[in-house]
Amino acid sequence: MEALGKVYLIGAGPGDPELLTFRAMRMLSEADVVLYDRLVSPEILAFCPRRATRIPVGKAPKCHPVPQERINELLLHHALRGRVVARLKGGDPLVFGRGSEEAAHLRAHGVEVAYAPGITAAQAAASATGVPLTHRGLAGSVQYVTGHRQAGQVLDLDWKRLADPDTTLVVYMGVANIGQIAIGLMTEGLDPATPVLAVAQATTRHERRLVSRLDAVGRDVRDAELRAPVLFVIGRVVALYAEAGIPGAVAARAMAAAHA
Amino acid sequence: MEALGKVYLIGAGPGDPELLTFRAMRMLSEADVVLYDRLVSPEILAFCPRRATRIPVGKAPKCHPVPQERINELLLHHALRGRVVARLKGGDPLVFGRGSEEAAHLRAHGVEVAYAPGITAAQAAASATGVPLTHRGLAGSVQYVTGHRQAGQVLDLDWKRLADPDTTLVVYMGVANIGQIAIGLMTEGLDPATPVLAVAQATTRHERRLVSRLDAVGRDVRDAELRAPVLFVIGRVVALYAEAGIPGAVAARAMAAAHA
Ligand SMILES: C[S@@+](CC[C@H](N)C(=O)[O-])C[C@H]1O[C@@H](n2cnc3c(N)ncnc32)[C@H](O)[C@@H]1O
Ligand SMILES: C[S@@+](CC[C@H](N)C(=O)[O-])C[C@H]1O[C@@H](n2cnc3c(N)ncnc32)[C@H](O)[C@@H]1O
Repeated sequence: MEALGKVYLIGAGPGDPELLTFRAMRMLSEADVVLYDRLVSPEILAFCPRRATRIPVGKAPKCHPVPQERINELLLHHALRGRVVARLKGGDPLVFGRGSEEAAHLRAHGVEVAYAPGITAAQAAASATGVPLTHRGLAGSVQYVTGHRQAGQVLDLDWKRLADPDTTLVVYMGVANIGQIAIGLMTEGLDPATPVLAVAQATTRHERRLVSRLDAVGRDVRDAELRAPVLFVIGRVVALYAEAGIPGAVAARAMAAAHA
Repeated sequence: MEALGKVYLIGAGPGDPELLTFRAMRMLSEADVVLYDRLVSPEILAFCPRRATRIPVGKAPKCHPVPQERINELLLHHALRGRVVARLKGGDPLVFGRGSEEAAHLRAHGVEVAYAPGITAAQAAASATGVPLTHRGLAGSVQYVTGHRQAGQVLDLDWKRLADPDTTLVVYMGVANIGQIAIGLMTEGLDPATPVLAVAQATTRHERRLVSRLDAVGRDVRDAELRAPVLFVIGRVVALYAEAGIPGAVAARAMAAAHA
């Protein structure tokens, strides 16, 4: 019987290869097989060992080229054949990353799993723009939610709970529904003037930012035609954006307007 | 007139040097002066360039050896003298890290600031234990709150908002108040059997975990005498802990009991 391989569930971060951790790089360097998501950048894939087989298993919004069950099978298949498998995911594997679903499947078959955490899209948006996720007096907590639903399912977010002026709300996978999300939050009392930051393709060469407000973000985002992936940061902390002095910060709203 | 220096606000992650990003390491390597928090591990400080002056500005709970105003002054002082200043913080500088307060002070004086995001304590606890922060069907969102208040101030958390069985609640700086936090959550209807994971000194040699439930965590944490820093993860995702198969996972509750 062959020895079992193992699977590394690796957070590849938001795109910029400089945001990889040393652990992620070490695990990747050991790989015989690399399965990677659509959000993993070509610059990072370039660090795959030459001997490694690369398998794209990316999910684009609204189309699933490789269903999750098939990804689970592929990971297991290669691990059972004694290979070291690197599973590269955008951001962190345990934040909207399904890392724990893949791990459960592998472990149920006796395959060892280890994680490398990764810089999340939320942290990427924050460090790229200078907008903090918490800030004394502005936001005493931060919450990450998903704005995505399967086709035909209602967006059943708990608006009452989310409409909190003292929290930073980070919306993942929300580009299709951000207008509806803004309405839900305003209906539950969040100030229509609450600032919203959208960051598309954060930390990549194609990064774009847009600053809007709750009562305009739906239209502004549509007009700006931001390209996925897009992350939204909603809350008082966004007011610090113009002051952050990070290149591109001040002109964002004007740019978005000009682009429209 | 001397040229202005600049300040790098660097996330040093939770402790394990392998969790540094390449950017953090690059910025550190450029430093003439390094100001560092108590939570930055000696293994990471070892990467400071030899020429760099090291200045500890750590805040221990309930005592502030160096007040925030003084830290701001020190950063500014060295930057105004043309130095490259690395400000090393535990975790991520923009998550309960005051990075944006320091940045605002520096920028008000014309000093350039750049960030390196870092792996947060929450991500560290997750990847070390296999407990995800979100998981389909168990937690559709995750929220980070602080359990710390200044001496004499009441813990005015919004229990109604936080008591959500569909969210993972991560409590930073909560070791002194976790019993009170658990009571607040149960009073607002969270199931007393909701599992709670405490991770002390995550990703360091001294890492310890404890699994408990909402109605026992106050006592369990006191009995176990966990050493700071400690992070709490509250919610259904913690049920995945025993199955995560990560060394140390299964026996945690038993260990804590034996230790008591
Ligand atoms: C399936 S989730 C993966 C999240 C990831 N595991 C993390 O920790 O950030 C995909 C969503 O993450 C966000 N995202 C990921 N990378 C991003 C980037 N570079 N810029 C902006 N948003 C990003 C977008 O909201 C996207 O729809
Ligand atoms: C001032 S906050 C800093 C948070 C940090 N900026 C982050 O992103 O994780 C300090 C708190 O972080 C948590 N923490 C930091 N490092 C930790 C570690 N290695 N293990 C467990 N908790 C940690 C503890 O709750 C501690 O009280």
